[in-house]
This record gives sequence, structure tokens and C-alpha cells, in this order.
Amino acid sequence: MIYFTCDYQEGCHPAILEALQRTNFEQTPGYGEDAYCAEAAGLIRSLCQAPSAQVHFLVGGTQVNLLAVACALRPHQGALCADVGHINTHESGAIEATGHKCIPLPSVSGKITGDQVRSYVRDHFALGNHEHVVQPGMVYISIATELGANYTRSEIADIFAACRETGLYLYVDGARLACAMADAACDWDLPFLAAHSDYFTLGGTKAGLLFGEALVITNPALQKDFRYIMKQRGGMLAKGRLLGIQYAVMLRDGLYFRLGRHAVAMSEKVRRALSALQVPLLSENGTNQTFPILPDSVIEAISDRFTLCPWERVDDTHQAVRIATSWATRQEDVDALIAALTSALR
Amino acid sequence: MIYFTCDYQEGCHPAILEALQRTNFEQTPGYGEDAYCAEAAGLIRSLCQAPSAQVHFLVGGTQVNLLAVACALRPHQGALCADVGHINTHESGAIEATGHKCIPLPSVSGKITGDQVRSYVRDHFALGNHEHVVQPGMVYISIATELGANYTRSEIADIFAACRETGLYLYVDGARLACAMADAACDWDLPFLAAHSDYFTLGGTKAGLLFGEALVITNPALQKDFRYIMKQRGGMLAKGRLLGIQYAVMLRDGLYFRLGRHAVAMSEKVRRALSALQVPLLSENGTNQTFPILPDSVIEAISDRFTLCPWERVDDTHQAVRIATSWATRQEDVDALIAALTSALR
Amino acid sequence: MIYFTCDYQEGCHPAILEALQRTNFEQTPGYGEDAYCAEAAGLIRSLCQAPSAQVHFLVGGTQVNLLAVACALRPHQGALCADVGHINTHESGAIEATGHKCIPLPSVSGKITGDQVRSYVRDHFALGNHEHVVQPGMVYISIATELGANYTRSEIADIFAACRETGLYLYVDGARLACAMADAACDWDLPFLAAHSDYFTLGGTKAGLLFGEALVITNPALQKDFRYIMKQRGGMLAKGRLLGIQYAVMLRDGLYFRLGRHAVAMSEKVRRALSALQVPLLSENGTNQTFPILPDSVIEAISDRFTLCPWERVDDTHQAVRIATSWATRQEDVDALIAALTSALR
Amino acid sequence: MIYFTCDYQEGCHPAILEALQRTNFEQTPGYGEDAYCAEAAGLIRSLCQAPSAQVHFLVGGTQVNLLAVACALRPHQGALCADVGHINTHESGAIEATGHKCIPLPSVSGKITGDQVRSYVRDHFALGNHEHVVQPGMVYISIATELGANYTRSEIADIFAACRETGLYLYVDGARLACAMADAACDWDLPFLAAHSDYFTLGGTKAGLLFGEALVITNPALQKDFRYIMKQRGGMLAKGRLLGIQYAVMLRDGLYFRLGRHAVAMSEKVRRALSALQVPLLSENGTNQTFPILPDSVIEAISDRFTLCPWERVDDTHQAVRIATSWATRQEDVDALIAALTSALR
Repeated sequence: MIYFTCDYQEGCHPAILEALQRTNFEQTPGYGEDAYCAEAAGLIRSLCQAPSAQVHFLVGGTQVNLLAVACALRPHQGALCADVGHINTHESGAIEATGHKCIPLPSVSGKITGDQVRSYVRDHFALGNHEHVVQPGMVYISIATELGANYTRSEIADIFAACRETGLYLYVDGARLACAMADAACDWDLPFLAAHSDYFTLGGTKAGLLFGEALVITNPALQKDFRYIMKQRGGMLAKGRLLGIQYAVMLRDGLYFRLGRHAVAMSEKVRRALSALQVPLLSENGTNQTFPILPDSVIEAISDRFTLCPWERVDDTHQAVRIATSWATRQEDVDALIAALTSALR
Repeated sequence: MIYFTCDYQEGCHPAILEALQRTNFEQTPGYGEDAYCAEAAGLIRSLCQAPSAQVHFLVGGTQVNLLAVACALRPHQGALCADVGHINTHESGAIEATGHKCIPLPSVSGKITGDQVRSYVRDHFALGNHEHVVQPGMVYISIATELGANYTRSEIADIFAACRETGLYLYVDGARLACAMADAACDWDLPFLAAHSDYFTLGGTKAGLLFGEALVITNPALQKDFRYIMKQRGGMLAKGRLLGIQYAVMLRDGLYFRLGRHAVAMSEKVRRALSALQVPLLSENGTNQTFPILPDSVIEAISDRFTLCPWERVDDTHQAVRIATSWATRQEDVDALIAALTSALR
Repeated sequence: MIYFTCDYQEGCHPAILEALQRTNFEQTPGYGEDAYCAEAAGLIRSLCQAPSAQVHFLVGGTQVNLLAVACALRPHQGALCADVGHINTHESGAIEATGHKCIPLPSVSGKITGDQVRSYVRDHFALGNHEHVVQPGMVYISIATELGANYTRSEIADIFAACRETGLYLYVDGARLACAMADAACDWDLPFLAAHSDYFTLGGTKAGLLFGEALVITNPALQKDFRYIMKQRGGMLAKGRLLGIQYAVMLRDGLYFRLGRHAVAMSEKVRRALSALQVPLLSENGTNQTFPILPDSVIEAISDRFTLCPWERVDDTHQAVRIATSWATRQEDVDALIAALTSALR
Repeated sequence: MIYFTCDYQEGCHPAILEALQRTNFEQTPGYGEDAYCAEAAGLIRSLCQAPSAQVHFLVGGTQVNLLAVACALRPHQGALCADVGHINTHESGAIEATGHKCIPLPSVSGKITGDQVRSYVRDHFALGNHEHVVQPGMVYISIATELGANYTRSEIADIFAACRETGLYLYVDGARLACAMADAACDWDLPFLAAHSDYFTLGGTKAGLLFGEALVITNPALQKDFRYIMKQRGGMLAKGRLLGIQYAVMLRDGLYFRLGRHAVAMSEKVRRALSALQVPLLSENGTNQTFPILPDSVIEAISDRFTLCPWERVDDTHQAVRIATSWATRQEDVDALIAALTSALR
């Protein structure tokens, strides 16, 4: 069986295991205060051209998202986000358990706009009794979104401008940032993102690490005492070096970005084939996820060899599925999938 | 200036002040463990034909709502509610500050249905990774709703049946229960409500008390240790007798219900006049709130003598307003309002 | 039966009921935005010589304490307090439910010192891994303390200086402030307290109001958005005017302070008698609470007419009890108690 | 420089890296629903003779502790623990951030007793106003304790009996369980522990894994919906198999226990040498931590080659330090340390 269900079904890139092996018996301080974490943080600051950014290494995405909210908001504030945003839908109420409301905005392919932020904030303060309503305190966006969409340079700049105008923080969940940056249409880079957000993550789990999310905090107002909050929410890894070693391996020579490009190339191949087969997509994008709408019979026909991720029912005989590729996806598996779809669709 | 903006702009029914005066120098235990609270609780149990119900007296609506959630839900659970439900919109994130998500359902005049509950719960557990999504743990409904609507006997019974089938608790926010029961179309009574919910409030603040919400807990599973949680969230009044005295006065001879009927009668008068004037309503109902859609010019024309509550803009020249009447509304003020509207609308 | 168990067993001073009666049918805005609240806030600012202080009116002590913590602390911070401090012992974990740790310091009669604050904070930051330990973020003191003790001018000044040196906020729980100020040994006044704390309460419930705590926030850093948090935690009274009216009555002509002096005078009388009877006290003080150590037989002997508050067992045949007097304590009841004790102790 | 500061300064046992390598390109479901987690859980159930136990794999200790509290307590409940217990001292307020109070009990070498539990609970419910005080809901003990002490079979049985009598849950933090079981004086085993607690952890991070804590829940009342809460608090590892693989390697053939015995043997060697040198210990124990009281001059003298963990100052010229050994400690390093101490102490 070949799985295209998600982007974290294998372990990690072999270079990481090799580095873990090589460093295994070194003695280092715990809790991320070792030389590998320092090196990896330095690499990230340098890639971002953000010399005063703080970089923290965390294990998982839900954890880093809830920490991003906890460190930024006062008790009465909430986080504006897309209605389909991960924090609003698939984190079991992690944000609410931290005491804050997710304030959902209608979205297109998981994207929201600067003007939505401006108008939500303006309407909030125009209310007679705005103190009775959760105050928006930050904006959460995912790049790439949960539906694989990417933001453009001008869209990011506009959301960030809206945040500056309204006094909100902008947080970017970059669990799939490597794939967003590998999108052929991507017109921004890390220095741009670092300069147009208050904090963001450079996701590792879905990019070829065993696990890990690097949180880059560029806004000094959010840097203070972050490690206390990390520790308090169970986010401080005892053997923190494991994160530093992994990120250092990935970033020393650009492996992180090459793996992102591989994942996207595999999806592009899938999309070209689907287009040739005239299969409609739920949502267009240029990253590592594709959402074709397929007849149930086709999904059934290939199900002995390929598992795709069910997404949503479209009508009585069709459903949208997610095909996710990753750093680990093999060319031949993609070819086999395309062949199977081609055959089943005939 | 005469205000029709809300139902808590005056103090309280004179009988309450008289009772406070009469009992003022009695010495009683604090924290609701006095004889007046015991009497009032007994009256409520008796009115509800629920001899084993617990009754707790609290000061305000947001407080009682957050306690209702805190006492019932486990950390990963949320409260299903109407999208316009008070807990979802006008409590500054009180539920989220308690750690739980409000899960909004589309509503009609602020009402939801048993089938919405059934289908939400079924869909939740049908999800592949339902553990990644907040689990519905209770249903919150308001009677009357925020838009003045009432539930029928069969609607309540069906929501309660849906809750029983799915293992959720049903909580009824009865801040405006007195007016709901005074609705001419109301086909249920307190014993019915007590038998078809797990807990509900008999609102006092909007019904002629200085302040107070009586929480009636009929489900034994929710009764345990409630007073700890009350105290913890600042909901236990030191001189708890103030609540007992007020509820006793209101319930000994039915004053509570008479005042509800007065409030509704005043609104009925308003509605008849609006109907005669062919003014459309945002939402039909038979309780103490009316939501006419009026030309801006009319609102402006009467604004030197009458203040209504702005609700929502309908088009460039019209807005919906709320006209709320209460136990304290005077017949002559309603007549004056009708006269003013009639004249302005011509 | 005459009760000396606590200072909130009666209703309120008659002048308050009279004012509630007089204003009962006035229409005012809700939520504390009425003219009475504005007047009362102005009176407090003026008494405190703190023209830019914010004043908020809340119903109860646990509520105001948890709000004081919620508005001031970031998630990883805790509140330094006396081990016997109310927030640490008698609020059912209200502070923890708000997400924060009470950090108890050893105390004498419920008092802590500036040097305890300095040394705790210094030791905290001297720790190798201080990020693994709750960071002190504020200091909570009660005036008078739970054991009736008062702070002197220089003690308050020193705690406040310690807070300024260490970057902590100082919050004073003044539930019994009226009695502390009536202490013959009290060498400070409201302007001094306002100038030597970041925020404090002027307690009403124990000082002759039906209920109410006035929170005075002098530090601008703590003023922002306080009303959101009030609303969120159920602390915003719908008919907020009830608090404004009560405080206005109490403060217009100094009634608040006269009632404090009465309560203390009654306790002084008790203390003089106990001293003459050579009854030892658990803790000396000059406010409205006295903690004599009495033989069980004496407590038993007077128990048909007088109820005192059990405090702690001292040995097999003696216990400390609390005798609390209040604004409502009658001279003749104190005389009767003294006579009874005198007779029983012979 | 050789470090004896803690038990997590190296990576992991080589067999683990080897297994990660071997399985690296297998495709498995995420979130702990893979065959390796199932195998490891089965091994643990079998070792514990607890066929109906739930086993969950988590990344770190603070995380598992806060989940243990979140899944068990209602909002008004707290966790009884030793004053020096990890949750009370070194988790940055993780338990309070979850809404609950740590209720510290005096301890000896970090140990508490069944009778302390009994008397605390009895005293709590004997209070007049117990609803004003946090209700004890669970007991937290560490085995081994933070000071290296172990519990005996009868001590554990008595604490568990006390919990059963009082209705509290017993949770055992087994971050250092492997070393406790390797203690020569240990008179209990896993089946005993599983039968005499409600849930406990089998710590991995300090026992030779890269990271990991296995939570074993034997009490069915605590099993329901645990995975939701795991996910909500950021405790569900995306590539959950990493935990399953590690535990499976450690438990298939007893490696876990052999490594614990090695760690303890190294400490025993240190203790014999210290005893011969007549160095007093802060606290006696038979696990992998030793707390000698050493002259500052000695610590200084060896500090160019050995780093010990500062623990507490004893007097002007002496301090207690922690010497921790682990699965990774080399015989020759222990010999060198002993030689250096011997020489410096002469």
C-alpha cells in the first residue's frame, strides 16, 4: 500500500539520523541551551536577515500555536483566523484551553485578507458595548494554508499593514512553509516574511525532520520571558539539542529548501496529470497538496494500492480527496498513482 | 427621555426593597446558607415539581453561564449554541476563559433544533480524527432567545431528546424566562422545563429583581460540589440572603410571573401598533422584545424623547432597532412611543 | 442568639436602602456607565488625591481579587502573598483557576515585608534555571490582614519600594480597609495608600454596604481594557448603578469612615475587657477582629447566647476564636458578651 | 569536562538510533496509531500484568504531568504533593496554568505518606466552609523523588489505600522509575505499582530514550477521551511512531531495566567512595542521584574537569551538590571523579 494521505508518514531525511548518530554521546546542557540550538538559531536569523530575532525550537505544531497565542494575548483578546484555520478546527480547542477565542473569518482556500482584518477591528470598536465582545488581539494565518494555498507578497504585506494599523500582532503558522516557498508562484522570501510578521514558524515535522517547529520572534515585545511559557505548557524539550541538531543539518546547506522543492515537484506532476485527465480540483494551488474531486468508483478502484485522504463529500457519487506529497515521496510512486488514476478514470 | 433600550434600566419592584428593609438587621449566616435562600429554593423546587433539584442563587448572567459550563464540561469539550447565542457573542469570551469553545450552529431567530444537535454530534464522531476536534459536551439554548423568540414544548422536548441520545447536557439560559412564559403562545411550564433539561436559570435581573439568577440543577450528575466552583469563580455572594430574600418575595405569590406578563403585554401593544403601521419586523415573537425595521428619519424624529436600542443596519436608509419593555414599563410611555412613531411614520 | 462570627451578617446601613428607594425608578444605562457610578468614582479619586485613577465597582472580594491577578500577570507569573493570605487559602483556587500560582511567604499576623519580596525575587533570578519556576509578577497584601493586623506607613512604603525595585505590581486587598483606617495606630491615609500601591480595593461588603468592592487602579499600565476582563469573568453588574449609589451614599459625607470607627470601637471595648480578664490573644491588633484563646468550657458556657467563630485549636482544652464586630454591632450586645465572658471565666 | 549534572545530557542508547534507522522509510499512520505504538503499549501492559490498561506515549515530563492533572480533576480540585514535588517547584506553574492548585505537604527526602493524605482530606471536609478551600482531588508522588528517594511497597500500598478511602486518584510521576526499580532496596515491581495507583509514568527521557514518557492509565475512569486532551495540550506527537519504536526497543528484551541498573550501579560506586571519605549526604538513597555536602574548596578544586549540579548552600563554606549518573555514565569517568574528590578532600 502506498500512502498519499499526509506529509508526515515517514521518519526523516537520512542526514538527520546520521547527525544524531554522530553527536549521540556528546554531553550538552539541556533545554535548548546547547551549541547546536545556538548554531541553528544563528542560521535562521541569518537566512531571515533578522539579527535580533529570537528563535525557539519546539516539538509540534499545536504546541507552538498555543504558545504563540499565550505569549501575545491578554485574557480578553482573541485570535482572528480563517474559518478553516488549523487553530479553529483541528487542535481540539487548544486555543480555548489557553483561555482565548478563535474568531473565524470567511476564507477563500483558507486565505483571509488585510481588509477583512481592518473591517473586523473597525466594527468591533464601533460597537456600543464592545467590552462585551472578545477583542481581536492577533491575526493567525497559515502559509501554506490548510488547503494548500499560498499568500502573495502583496497579500502578506497588506495583512501586516492592517495589523500595524489596528495594533494587532501577526502570527504565521509555517508548518508547511517549506512547500509554500517552493511554490513556483511564490514571490516572497524569508527576509520578507520576517519583516512582515511579528512571529512565524519554520515548520520541520512536515519538511523532513523527525519533529520540530522553529518559532522566529522578530517583534521584541513578544520575546520577553518566552522560555518560561514554553516550559509551563510542556513545550521545552529536555534534550533540546535534538531540535538544534536537526535544524542545523537542514539549514547548513539548504537541504530544507531542496526537500520542499521535491515535495512540490511531486505534486506538480500529480496536478499536470489530473489536468490532462480533466479532473476538477476543489482548490487550485502550487504547493504540496492537491484536492481533486473524484468519482467514488475511482477511489474505490485504486484503493487496493493507494490510500488518499478523504476530504469532503461533493455529491452522491463524488468526493474531494487530499493527495499530499512530501520530502519522502518517491517519483515511481507518483508515476504509479497517475497510471492507476488514468486507468480508473477511463 | 424615555428609554426602551433594555430590560434592566430601573432598580427593582418596590416589594423587594420593602423586604430588604424589613429584614435588614436580622443576623444570618453568609454565602447563601440562610433561611431566605432555603425558602426561595424550596419555592422554586415546588414550582418546578422537582423536589430533588438543587437551586443556587447567583448575581449575574455571564457568571451563571460560565459556571454552567465549568461544572459540566471536561477540558476537551465545548458547548453547542446558536451563532447569536449570548455566550458566543456578548460575554467577552467568558466561556473560552473557562477553557472551552463555543461551537456555533446556524440559527433562526436565535433558535436551534434537536436535529442540528443530532447531526453535529454524529458528524463529529464520524470524523477520522475526531480527537483533533473539540468534542461537543453540552447544548446551550436561550429562552427567550436574544431575538425574543420562544421555543415550543415540542422543540424543547426534541432538543432534550437529542441531548439524551448523544450524551450531551442541555442547559437553558433563562435570563428572560419570565417573559418567555408570559408569551401567549407558550405551551410549556416550569415542571415541563425542569423535566426536559439538565439545568436552567430562572432569571431575576431582567424580571424585576435588583439582580439575581437562580440556577436550577435537576441532573444529579451536575449537582456535586457546585458551591466550590461558585466560590472559585467569584460567584458566591457574601450576603447571599439578598438573593434569597428577593426570590422569595417574587415567588411567594406569583409576582415574578405577573411582572413577566406585564412586560409582554407592553410589547404586545407595541407590536399591534407597528403592525397597524405596517412596519416590518426583523423577527417575529411574542415576548418582551420587538425588532422593527424603521427608516433612519423616523428614529431621528423621535430621538429627542425616546431612545431605542440600535440593532443592525438593513439598508442605506433603514435600520432594525430593539424595543424592550419590562416589568417597569409604564403604559403611558408605551402610548407616547406609539403616538410618536405613528406621527413620524406618516 | 447574638453572632460575632463575621462582619457581614446584617444587610446594610439604612442610608443605603433609603438611597436605593429614592432612585429606584430612575432609568439609567447599565454596566456601571451611569451618573451614580461616575459620582462615586469621582469621590474616591478625590479622597485619594488621585485624579487619574480608574475606579471600578465590583460585587465581591474573590471576584475583584481574581480580576486583579488576571489584569496584571502574564501566564508564567504568580502572586507573592502571605501564607495565610485570602487568595492562598479561602478562595477555592480562584487564582489558580485564572492560571496563576499563589506563591506563599511566611507571615506574622498575616503580614509580609519588603525585604521578603526583595529576597524572593533576587533568589528567583539567581536560580540557574529560573525559567522552570513561576516568576513572581505581583505582590498581594491584605489591609487589614486576615488576622486583623494593620500595616504601618513605613511598612507599606517599603513593600512598595521593593515592588518598584523588582518590577512587581503591588495590589492591596482592602476588604477591611475601613477598619484598618479606623485603627488608632494607623499612620497612613488614602492618598498615601494610593501613592504607594498600583491598585487597591476600598471594601464595601464588610463596611456597611449590601455588597461591593471598589477597585482603584492608579497605575496606568493596569488600566487598559479592564472592563473587558470584568465582563469576561462575570464581574460586570448589569444594574451597575446599585454599586455607584451605595458608594456615593457612603462617601459623600464620610459615613464609610464613621462606620469603620464604630466597628473598631466595639472591638476595642472587647479587647479591653479581655485584657482585664487576662485572656491571651492569638494575635494583637487594633482593628475589628479579636482572636482570644479561650477554654472550651467558656465557649460552651456562653454558647446558648453567643456564637463566636472557631479559629484554631491551641491545646486539648483551649481554642482560639474570632470575635468580629462591624458597622452593625450594637453597644449592648458587646456589653452582654463581656458580661457573659467575665462570668464564665471566673 | 565531564558532567554529572543531570541524567539527560547525552542522546540515547545506540539500539534506539539503530531502530529509527531501520524503520525510517516505512509509512505509518500518525498520532500514535501505528503498529510500533501498539507493540510498545502491549509490552507495557504485559510487564504490568494490566491487560486493560491504556498506554499513551508523550514527549516530556511536564507535559505528561499537566495532562495527568487535566484529565482527572474537576475545576475546584487540586493535587496534593510533596512541597519539593516537581509539579510544585520546577514546572513554571504548569499545573496552575491548567487551572489547578498544587497543595504542598511537608516531605522527607521528597516523600509523603498515606497518613498525611488521610489527615489532610479529613481536615478539609471538617472545615466549616470547606467550599472556600481547594478540594484535594488527587495525590501526586514522584518515584524516585526529586531527592533520589524510593518508596517501599508498604508505603505505596498505604498511600494508595489512603486515596481509595478518601476518593482521590493516585498519580505516580515515574520520570526516574527505571532507577527506582534498580534500587537494591526496591521491594516492589511493575505489576504491584500498576495495581496500587490509578496511573503512572514509565519515564524514558532519563532512561536512555531520546525522549518519551509512557503514561499507563489503569483506572478506567481516567481513560475516557484522554487522546482529546493530549491533542489539546500539544502532547500528541505527529510522528507518534517515534515513541512507539523507542519504547519497543527498550522493552522487548529488558534493555530499559538494564540501563536503570547501570545508572544506579554507577551511583552506588560514588556513594561507597563518599562514605569512605566520610562525606555527609543531604539525603540517603539507593537510586541514581547522590547529594554530598562538600567544602566549596573541593568543588572549586575539581571544577576544571568535573561539573556537578549545585543544589543548596549548607553553610558559609559548604554546599550540597547533586551527582547524577545515568545509562550513559562511563565507569572510567566515575573512577576519575572519585580520584579527584579523594585527592581534593585530603
